[in-house]
Amino acid sequence: MKMALNQWTTRSWTVAEAVDGCVRHGVEAIGLWRQDVAAQGLAATVDLVGGAGLRVSSLCRGGFLTSSDWEADNRAAIDEAAALRAGCLVLVVGGLPGVVPGEPLGGFSRDLRQARRRVADALGVLAPYARDRGVRLALEPLHPMYCADRAVISTLAQALDLAEPYDPAVLGVVVDTFHLWWDPDVLAQIARAGERIASYQVCDFLHPIPPDVLLARGMMGDGVIDFRPITDAVLAAGYTGDVEVEIFNADLWAADPDAVLAQAKTRFAEHISPHPAETSG
Amino acid sequence: MKMALNQWTTRSWTVAEAVDGCVRHGVEAIGLWRQDVAAQGLAATVDLVGGAGLRVSSLCRGGFLTSSDWEADNRAAIDEAAALRAGCLVLVVGGLPGVVPGEPLGGFSRDLRQARRRVADALGVLAPYARDRGVRLALEPLHPMYCADRAVISTLAQALDLAEPYDPAVLGVVVDTFHLWWDPDVLAQIARAGERIASYQVCDFLHPIPPDVLLARGMMGDGVIDFRPITDAVLAAGYTGDVEVEIFNADLWAADPDAVLAQAKTRFAEHISPHPAETSG
Repeated sequence: MKMALNQWTTRSWTVAEAVDGCVRHGVEAIGLWRQDVAAQGLAATVDLVGGAGLRVSSLCRGGFLTSSDWEADNRAAIDEAAALRAGCLVLVVGGLPGVVPGEPLGGFSRDLRQARRRVADALGVLAPYARDRGVRLALEPLHPMYCADRAVISTLAQALDLAEPYDPAVLGVVVDTFHLWWDPDVLAQIARAGERIASYQVCDFLHPIPPDVLLARGMMGDGVIDFRPITDAVLAAGYTGDVEVEIFNADLWAADPDAVLAQAKTRFAEHISPHPAETSG
Repeated sequence: MKMALNQWTTRSWTVAEAVDGCVRHGVEAIGLWRQDVAAQGLAATVDLVGGAGLRVSSLCRGGFLTSSDWEADNRAAIDEAAALRAGCLVLVVGGLPGVVPGEPLGGFSRDLRQARRRVADALGVLAPYARDRGVRLALEPLHPMYCADRAVISTLAQALDLAEPYDPAVLGVVVDTFHLWWDPDVLAQIARAGERIASYQVCDFLHPIPPDVLLARGMMGDGVIDFRPITDAVLAAGYTGDVEVEIFNADLWAADPDAVLAQAKTRFAEHISPHPAETSG
């Protein structure tokens, strides 16, 4: 399996620094974040990753389709993903309209079903636009603890139901161990997903959950997830793409990014790569 | 709908104080916690609730069936539920073996599927014991953010699959809005549950989630849940039992319990009871 670095695992690095880090550590693909690409400049980023010979495994992220002003920004995100020849544009679909991550509740809607219909409607607009530009969208189900503020799509089954009307080459799904490990149906849904898996992202789920639940992600091996069955299911489903290490973690963000990337490589080999005994014979 | 007080909503009250509070506020049923019953004395509690004419809507809780020493304590819990003539004994099934709520990870098992098999096996032992004593067990799926440390059962579908081999009068399920509101399948699963619903518990899901995720519960109306569709589904499924207000919340625990119970009654009328327009005609 090919490990990719999601840029926010080494969040203090600029795009240029992260590209350089990948080259130095022998990592062949990178998942980029739009705000960092904008800070570096889109054309400059295209040149950097091209010059380094890196694949862009994903662009993070479009989405927040439940807000009222989702359209222009998502068209821009698709254009950026096209310019970067990104493997996919990750879509975090958004929470209840008006609920803002980290902020107290103000005016908002409790209508969860209506929010989900908004997502379905927006996909109907974005999918043709992405198809015409050769961009693959990737719906990411998020852990249910983010349902109110970040994603009203909480399970892989739900993401696959939404994706079903579309060509898998246009609308795929993200399998992220952090978000899905608890789901009693996850292995069956990964098998169902098959070629629709546009991205496999790995990181661990910490216990206890830290005060900021967004930062409950940990280095593989530091949390509670058994990666073997999930990874085996992703491989059995036919996935041959890059595997992104994506960790939001305050301690890792404060650490030396080179040390974090080196540790990620070690832990990836221990917890994610198929064991020699499993690949032989 | 008949509102019941789950004792931990007014956690500073002893059993005697909570029984008295129910009587003074015109609440006809109470959900009790085993440690508080033990502090009051089981026989004394039986006398108190009997003397007050209260129903015991539930006894909280048995479970933690994934630990190695689950059996004796759960048999004791069933005996206590029988003595109290509780509507059900709530089972919180436990997390990954060795993972302790609130404590750093030590020696533990990442084998989630094995933990779930342990739950199924334990139910096979406990169900006949409960049946013989006239006690109804109630499996409670908990929010997936508690999967590691409190309950490897995270969805109503999963609880119903586990319960299927058993008589609904012996093994039911708990529908708790806090745990299930995010589930895209929850309304269909409530319909499937039908007479297996042994308890309907209500409280809101706060946003942002507070630093201690166990205390993310809030008074109905203070969080993000739309109670109407869930309550309607529970009623349509044929549930006619008590509806417990169960809120773990640091601010409410620090407040005057009488004020909390009074507010719970008001909010219950606003958010849970069918509106007059819905019950008429």
